[in-house]
Amino acid sequence: MTVRFSSRVDISAPNPIAAAEADARAHGVVLGKLNDSNPTRHGLAPAEVPGVYTAEPRGPRPARETLARYLSDTGDSPAGSAPVDPDSLYLLSSTSEAYSWLIKLLCDAGDAVLAPKPGYPLIESIARLECVDTIEYQLRFDGSWFIDTAAIEQLLYSEQGERIRALVLINPNNPSGSYVKPEERATLVRLCAERGIAIIADEVFYDYALEPFDGNARLAGETGVLTFALDGFSKMLAAPHAKVGWIRVSGPQSDVIEAQRRLDVIADDYLPMSDIIADRLPELLAAAPAQVARVRERVRGNLAALHGMLEGDEHGLVDVLRAEGGWNILLRVPSVIDENELVLRLIESHGLTGQPGYFFDMTSNGYLAVSLLPEPDEFRRNIRAVLDTVAAMLG
Amino acid sequence: MTVRFSSRVDISAPNPIAAAEADARAHGVVLGKLNDSNPTRHGLAPAEVPGVYTAEPRGPRPARETLARYLSDTGDSPAGSAPVDPDSLYLLSSTSEAYSWLIKLLCDAGDAVLAPKPGYPLIESIARLECVDTIEYQLRFDGSWFIDTAAIEQLLYSEQGERIRALVLINPNNPSGSYVKPEERATLVRLCAERGIAIIADEVFYDYALEPFDGNARLAGETGVLTFALDGFSKMLAAPHAKVGWIRVSGPQSDVIEAQRRLDVIADDYLPMSDIIADRLPELLAAAPAQVARVRERVRGNLAALHGMLEGDEHGLVDVLRAEGGWNILLRVPSVIDENELVLRLIESHGLTGQPGYFFDMTSNGYLAVSLLPEPDEFRRNIRAVLDTVAAMLG
Ligand SMILES: Cc1ncc(COP(=O)(O)O)c(C=O)c1O
Ligand SMILES: Cc1ncc(COP(=O)(O)O)c(C=O)c1O
Repeated sequence: MTVRFSSRVDISAPNPIAAAEADARAHGVVLGKLNDSNPTRHGLAPAEVPGVYTAEPRGPRPARETLARYLSDTGDSPAGSAPVDPDSLYLLSSTSEAYSWLIKLLCDAGDAVLAPKPGYPLIESIARLECVDTIEYQLRFDGSWFIDTAAIEQLLYSEQGERIRALVLINPNNPSGSYVKPEERATLVRLCAERGIAIIADEVFYDYALEPFDGNARLAGETGVLTFALDGFSKMLAAPHAKVGWIRVSGPQSDVIEAQRRLDVIADDYLPMSDIIADRLPELLAAAPAQVARVRERVRGNLAALHGMLEGDEHGLVDVLRAEGGWNILLRVPSVIDENELVLRLIESHGLTGQPGYFFDMTSNGYLAVSLLPEPDEFRRNIRAVLDTVAAMLG
Repeated sequence: MTVRFSSRVDISAPNPIAAAEADARAHGVVLGKLNDSNPTRHGLAPAEVPGVYTAEPRGPRPARETLARYLSDTGDSPAGSAPVDPDSLYLLSSTSEAYSWLIKLLCDAGDAVLAPKPGYPLIESIARLECVDTIEYQLRFDGSWFIDTAAIEQLLYSEQGERIRALVLINPNNPSGSYVKPEERATLVRLCAERGIAIIADEVFYDYALEPFDGNARLAGETGVLTFALDGFSKMLAAPHAKVGWIRVSGPQSDVIEAQRRLDVIADDYLPMSDIIADRLPELLAAAPAQVARVRERVRGNLAALHGMLEGDEHGLVDVLRAEGGWNILLRVPSVIDENELVLRLIESHGLTGQPGYFFDMTSNGYLAVSLLPEPDEFRRNIRAVLDTVAAMLG
């Protein structure tokens, strides 16, 4: 089933002037513009931001070429797969902005997106800003996390299935840390293709595997269904303050063409990528592999320390849910402890706040999300504080 | 009447943990965060983008302070008015993004904003992306442009008035070049205050007066009604490629407090301002006055040249509508000439394209928007091409 797009994007037939301009372009003719109000094309750019602004909806072509090369060289795509096409990439300032654009592209007001529970709380907030509902699908834990694909199938074929326009997959998910497994992916791609539903794959944590796992793969580049893969410098460069994100579009060719025609309109309305940043993209990408290695060492080191502390803990009241990737883990405390009370105690007695499971829509009580990023000493102090507080609450 | 906000923003009561955190903050206590996944706070920022990311919804405080100082010193606010408060400013990447946030703040799906006709075509496109309608109000020309405030009053008190949530004023407007006059402003502020409607004032062209005009004033800082004034580097620095814009909030205090509480939620979801750019704000602002002077000289010089050419033109078929400010003017050609045909001829015979009046919803035929930015020689060639083409079409 071909994907249905929203009616928010105006793709009405071009007027005769736009048609003549397109025709000239197609013949390699560069037209002058009587109404050209881009000062950088008239020698008026400030010395502090030199250059001529090209105002490309997808972001400056040289930057996209550099990024495409980087992704082709470092990606976890199957051997022999085609290199990443610079024209499949949209540069923007964050994955938040990417979610926002894609919801606009796919959903009218009152439509819905499917998003994982437990999951990244920002998705619901961003969807709501777009007048779109979030319907949660369950990740379940039986020693490791899995996606309840049967429940998703039921949702897609239910009465409310009609208004579901996108499936959000977070690979690996935050804060559960679980990757999308090969069988899950195969089922979900098939279901989405059947129902004409696009996949939005948030893969910002992809490079941060916490344990070896065969069969992990990026959804970026998936050809079985219209797929928008998100990534950016927040995690890949450990630089959330750089504000660089991107969308990679893939899927059946006809869906991709129609999606990009419409996404170009949205991108052209916002044009978020600054040349100040785009000019630095090669240098920043060059720094990414070392940054990934450095952060990976930190999170893996802290996870090992955590396991050591939990094993050595005399009370044995706390354990950690198996996490496969990402920067966060979930601690499980005895479910008699009220999550709110635990965090309020931590604030009071240790000056430490935190996010309990209900922030992420965990289905039962007794979880606490903990970041693996802190310097090792601080991390140990954090864990010590949790263990002591839990022991005191039950003592 | 107090302003009504949209239901897109989740402002549900804080949970006990958020309340305890706010309480600690109010007492000057800095809490640690178990779940802190900001790598820059753990010594993990890349050397290429150093510093600690503060993730402030309104943009980094030092950048807002610099901007507030700049606006206080250079603004056209009445003498003796209070300096600009850094906390009234929101930094973002463009006025497009600002329009988008403000429409989200104010309008539910199916609501409407009032926007000028002729006017900036992007507003309708951006509103549509937010599932919001644009209702046009008329600027009329009788030797100079004026706003039909009576028609606006009628609209606001009509049946569809209920769904109008914002009035967009462009000061000066593009492409008509007209400033909002003091009496118009007084009427519109009163009407909006009566009806609980916010003003969105796009003042990107404010500094580019084309002729002396007493009584021009920025709407930024207006206290009579909730007002969001937009500006940015696109015009003020002649740097659309820098991607820096801002919103300044003002108005009756209770409306401002409620607006900012909600706008902070939106801003926190997107956090668009990059530290790479924010760090350069002082240097870029320092360059702005010289850039404004340089571009102003260019546009005024070209306008004078245009007047000279029109006066010297043997056919006398073309004149220019009086423009008070901005970078664009409207040429008027004999209305027997079809606008599309005129531009198609220009493309064919001079390799020059342009935007006829209907692109901006002019109510009658026979207009062509022309940029005053080109280098003088190019500008003269452009005008020559128009004059020759018009003469040939009637010859
Ligand atoms: C699932 C997920 N996606 C994306 C991001 C980062 O988003 P951005 O690119 O907007 O900084 C985060 C940050 O915590 C996240 O948890
Ligand atoms: C009325 C108006 N507002 C704003 C802008 C600039 O917008 P941005 O800040 O999105 O570059 C323009 C550019 O042409 C404009 O004409």
